[in-house]
Amino acid sequence: MTSSRRWPSSGASCVADAHSQPGAGGGSPRVIVAGATGFAGALAAELLWRHPGFELVAVTGRSEVGRPLSELYPRYRVPLAIEQLDDPLFSDPDRPLDAAVVAYPHAAAAPTVAALRQAGVRVVDLSADFRLGSLETYERWYGPHPRPELLEQAAYGLTELHREQIASATIVANPGCYPTATVLALAPLARAGLIADVVVDAKQGISGAGRAFDEQTHLSMAGENILPYKVAAHRHTPEIEEQLARLGCEVKVQFQATLVPLDQGEMASCYVTPTREVGAEELRELYADAYSGEPFVEVAETVPGTRETLATNYCRLFAAADGHTGKVLVFSSLDNLWKGTSSQAVQNLNVMFAKPEAEGIA
Amino acid sequence: MTSSRRWPSSGASCVADAHSQPGAGGGSPRVIVAGATGFAGALAAELLWRHPGFELVAVTGRSEVGRPLSELYPRYRVPLAIEQLDDPLFSDPDRPLDAAVVAYPHAAAAPTVAALRQAGVRVVDLSADFRLGSLETYERWYGPHPRPELLEQAAYGLTELHREQIASATIVANPGCYPTATVLALAPLARAGLIADVVVDAKQGISGAGRAFDEQTHLSMAGENILPYKVAAHRHTPEIEEQLARLGCEVKVQFQATLVPLDQGEMASCYVTPTREVGAEELRELYADAYSGEPFVEVAETVPGTRETLATNYCRLFAAADGHTGKVLVFSSLDNLWKGTSSQAVQNLNVMFAKPEAEGIA
Amino acid sequence: MTSSRRWPSSGASCVADAHSQPGAGGGSPRVIVAGATGFAGALAAELLWRHPGFELVAVTGRSEVGRPLSELYPRYRVPLAIEQLDDPLFSDPDRPLDAAVVAYPHAAAAPTVAALRQAGVRVVDLSADFRLGSLETYERWYGPHPRPELLEQAAYGLTELHREQIASATIVANPGCYPTATVLALAPLARAGLIADVVVDAKQGISGAGRAFDEQTHLSMAGENILPYKVAAHRHTPEIEEQLARLGCEVKVQFQATLVPLDQGEMASCYVTPTREVGAEELRELYADAYSGEPFVEVAETVPGTRETLATNYCRLFAAADGHTGKVLVFSSLDNLWKGTSSQAVQNLNVMFAKPEAEGIA
Amino acid sequence: MTSSRRWPSSGASCVADAHSQPGAGGGSPRVIVAGATGFAGALAAELLWRHPGFELVAVTGRSEVGRPLSELYPRYRVPLAIEQLDDPLFSDPDRPLDAAVVAYPHAAAAPTVAALRQAGVRVVDLSADFRLGSLETYERWYGPHPRPELLEQAAYGLTELHREQIASATIVANPGCYPTATVLALAPLARAGLIADVVVDAKQGISGAGRAFDEQTHLSMAGENILPYKVAAHRHTPEIEEQLARLGCEVKVQFQATLVPLDQGEMASCYVTPTREVGAEELRELYADAYSGEPFVEVAETVPGTRETLATNYCRLFAAADGHTGKVLVFSSLDNLWKGTSSQAVQNLNVMFAKPEAEGIA
Repeated sequence: MTSSRRWPSSGASCVADAHSQPGAGGGSPRVIVAGATGFAGALAAELLWRHPGFELVAVTGRSEVGRPLSELYPRYRVPLAIEQLDDPLFSDPDRPLDAAVVAYPHAAAAPTVAALRQAGVRVVDLSADFRLGSLETYERWYGPHPRPELLEQAAYGLTELHREQIASATIVANPGCYPTATVLALAPLARAGLIADVVVDAKQGISGAGRAFDEQTHLSMAGENILPYKVAAHRHTPEIEEQLARLGCEVKVQFQATLVPLDQGEMASCYVTPTREVGAEELRELYADAYSGEPFVEVAETVPGTRETLATNYCRLFAAADGHTGKVLVFSSLDNLWKGTSSQAVQNLNVMFAKPEAEGIA
Repeated sequence: MTSSRRWPSSGASCVADAHSQPGAGGGSPRVIVAGATGFAGALAAELLWRHPGFELVAVTGRSEVGRPLSELYPRYRVPLAIEQLDDPLFSDPDRPLDAAVVAYPHAAAAPTVAALRQAGVRVVDLSADFRLGSLETYERWYGPHPRPELLEQAAYGLTELHREQIASATIVANPGCYPTATVLALAPLARAGLIADVVVDAKQGISGAGRAFDEQTHLSMAGENILPYKVAAHRHTPEIEEQLARLGCEVKVQFQATLVPLDQGEMASCYVTPTREVGAEELRELYADAYSGEPFVEVAETVPGTRETLATNYCRLFAAADGHTGKVLVFSSLDNLWKGTSSQAVQNLNVMFAKPEAEGIA
Repeated sequence: MTSSRRWPSSGASCVADAHSQPGAGGGSPRVIVAGATGFAGALAAELLWRHPGFELVAVTGRSEVGRPLSELYPRYRVPLAIEQLDDPLFSDPDRPLDAAVVAYPHAAAAPTVAALRQAGVRVVDLSADFRLGSLETYERWYGPHPRPELLEQAAYGLTELHREQIASATIVANPGCYPTATVLALAPLARAGLIADVVVDAKQGISGAGRAFDEQTHLSMAGENILPYKVAAHRHTPEIEEQLARLGCEVKVQFQATLVPLDQGEMASCYVTPTREVGAEELRELYADAYSGEPFVEVAETVPGTRETLATNYCRLFAAADGHTGKVLVFSSLDNLWKGTSSQAVQNLNVMFAKPEAEGIA
Repeated sequence: MTSSRRWPSSGASCVADAHSQPGAGGGSPRVIVAGATGFAGALAAELLWRHPGFELVAVTGRSEVGRPLSELYPRYRVPLAIEQLDDPLFSDPDRPLDAAVVAYPHAAAAPTVAALRQAGVRVVDLSADFRLGSLETYERWYGPHPRPELLEQAAYGLTELHREQIASATIVANPGCYPTATVLALAPLARAGLIADVVVDAKQGISGAGRAFDEQTHLSMAGENILPYKVAAHRHTPEIEEQLARLGCEVKVQFQATLVPLDQGEMASCYVTPTREVGAEELRELYADAYSGEPFVEVAETVPGTRETLATNYCRLFAAADGHTGKVLVFSSLDNLWKGTSSQAVQNLNVMFAKPEAEGIA
């Protein structure tokens, strides 16, 4: 249980006592994180390790096998060693699994999801493999889909919009961080048929590039830099458009992402040309109604900087009508690694296993 | 309960439910934070608001009266509005207080502590007013002491070293962040009589300068800067020396602090000339023995970057013997706002009120 | 000549020799910087001090009088002490002035410009006071204009667009950094009548907030933050619209600014709905033609991160057609303190005094 | 001459005109940079490209062959394409070379230096291969030396200490950035026989790790981190000790390096136990005398933050006597990529070719 990196001390167990005691409840759902070496998987593992309602039983990876996760990510407390993901892990009747978070790249995820499903495990998949309803759209952006037959099982894991489907789903496709921020920002307008045209300019910290070691993440290159990327070609565009369409809004979204020099944080600035004039009061009511009662979406009265949502599962929105241009502006602030990825995965697990939705993430 | 900054929604109460429900237990100790508008007081308030074992009943400030703390610090969830600290607050029999965290500057703190004591409230004081046992030393560095008669009531709040006195103390003088990092690093050597001479080079993020708006905190001046400050004249030196003396080590400490461009994080690098040769194995045992069983001090096998302890109450230490010079090197990593200040204050409150020591901060 | 901050040494004069030798040429235009204590004025002073073709004879300020500028900004080499700006400075026949850079806030600038004009001094004004051709527009955004009668003397100092007027102007209104980036990005499309609608999302580093000490500039608040500001109400909008109108394009511009955690750097991302379909080849030619021969505007083949233009007078542009939405995207990268403010002021002085345009700033 | 990355425009040549015109003088020494793809080589190339007194005729690399350097480093203006370093480059009688800056890793550098020497080219070598006078010491830290016979030709390139030898040297071993900062800080004390013991705690920005893509340079790992490294085992220690010994000071140096989250900047904080009491006045005179007349070493009256020396060839020193401990403190601030590496290489070339020492770097 102790990281090989620390000297033996009773401190470690003491700490474990202070935290959640996985499995202490006996009946807690047993969960693994597959692909825990990346930023998203590691944070999901950490959140589940601390979660009082789940038992994290294993973390897997294609590299770093044998090393405790807390050694790879010394900020985290998960003492479990990285295992290889293989059959025994999820088919051993003595180690029955209830759920898995899969944090693999697209195309690599689907076969693993399929194997887990065959073993009866419910999955939250962080990749793009099950996010799009349209196979055709998927294959245009990502190439051949490894397991198209599973698409219909999947619920889209934007909790606030698809809570009911998520509750009973066997596969939950956790949204991308950009679609999470954008769709939460635009949903009230989309539902009301108010979007004639929309430009989304989204800014994100460097953690959005993941544990990749390259020119985009080197501090001496990413620091003091503002870098738009994937110009006119972002894979998240169809995901956003499909979600808006499900709300009754068929629109071509101009989506652009930009890297800025911070670690975690994402701001989607949305510039909507409305189908008719929209006033401040109407906007206020529209957003208040849409998110009243939501534990993790907050409608603010001034622009919420991303620091406000840092290391939380909250998404904060601010909507304004521009009297000069007639456009509607919506700003959506969240932490790309939390609500944008890993804590939303836990929010979905809470919904899937009928836990209080905020348990372990508030 | 709702921040005036947010639109009315049932979301807010929903969130409150998910968190600690202050006072729900009825019997939880009632605590206030005096001086909650600064970084340290605000974080202490946030930690106590989320703490399952305390009821945060008020936050006070000399400015910003009437504004919810969550508006001043939008990352935090404390919905309480800033109040003025006056008699009724702590002498109203209908609002009995058990404890207070006082986050005032030195000299301003002591009279407030005195008033709180008169009302029977137990205090954790974050200022320097009660840290030094020697009145003479205090007055040399800080000027006349406003309430010298209270000095003898005070326990020094470095939890790991003075746990017993803290448990029964009426005033706990929370240590400075530099002394916390330094004394934890040096204590095992000090106790063993191994320190002949010591240089401490401590680096800290900008939050250490507090909510001061000046050339040291402006991002365009503090960014891309490494700035040693208070050369040959740091007030924390006597605090460190007094603590080492209590461990039997009389030594003049060369202490130097340096600001580096990050938010939270502190590294005390200690270069000890030992009184006799000390080998790696002896060092290992010395530190393992010293901190075995400690929930919040971890002895590492490699240097712990400050990112490892970010936003936690942990202090991580690494000790090494330098074969070339014969010196002993000890590196001490912690978060200056957490273990260095506010979460250590909560750790002390836990000890004072016989709560599990890690409750609310692990 | 030596900063009072350094110990006396012949080093200082040695350095001065190595740099530009102000006045060495005898015939160099004599220039002052009024308001040299802020970021913009200080950089203008530094650039002029190093400039081989101008003689910087004084720097003035309303505070810090008597302190050498190199003490206030230790990165800079200007040894001149801050003086008060008063009559003798610019009316002394023994100290005749040819030019002044005025770096005052709006409304404070105009009277100073008027006094300098009365003494026959040619002025580059960094404030907003003379940027707008329409007095009405000025007064709607800034209040009463202190010297409206001077408006007609002023040339708009976006060098690339108004080079001829600048050459002979007595007052040059240096553009705001946002209008510089935006108008350079949009001018080719505006002239060609291709802009039906446009959204400009501009990001900027913290130096854009100037030497203000507040919540927007404190590293522990501005760090790890992405903060849109002045939502639906940015004073730079009319300046941009007026410039586009002068190019024949009447359009309401949706302009939004966002602070990101770096020091110097600005990216204006422009999303244009064109009046007709525009292809990649047409765009390429449009921009190549527009900026062929320009020393400081470069048309790039990929998105230029702001690091590419850091501490230079260059503006780099990248234009792309989005096949999905039909929109035209233009990204404009510059350093807000350099091309956005102070080095463009020097570029204008070069033009005004018939120096090579790149002298001292390339 | 034009970067393939830019669209064709006459702007590029315009810019080249505005800059130094390499070879314009006909008689300028012809220089190459070998290994121009790394941070140090690229900056050396940029400085030489802008230098009025040298003609940069080629840049070489083991990768990226054929790409213009200005494409690899878009901030830089060098339009030359990366070439392979092979015989023809330096033995072609039609392309005679006068000098080379070699920016290779240790052990890889020496054979290249040898080949260049055989062709009669004078070399500034940025690697460790010729820094140490003692072959034995070199081999203890770096392994077998590839060209030990060349060691005696090499001058140690700390300009201020070895100007005369550098002037006539055929090989100049450019110092490491840590030794540059440290030896300049300690030299006056070393010469005066005042150092009994010394601890050097040096902090550096991430560019010090070079263009390496790994956990130490990823912004999401290096950001918000303070990370001591190579504990009790830094290769720069023997280099510092050898230089101090040449000044008559035999001492074992306790040297420790720490990475902090900025790009360029280095602070060496030196804690000296003096051989006898040293007062403030004596210190002041010692340092004033030592560096009087030096163009690039400045003795300051307060601690110089590294921002003061950012992107310059200056080293700023501040020395203080600590009345409490009796120790002498010296703080040394420079830019690790400039005075610490590449601009010092140009300073050395200036000395080697009898140019004004500050030409091209002030």
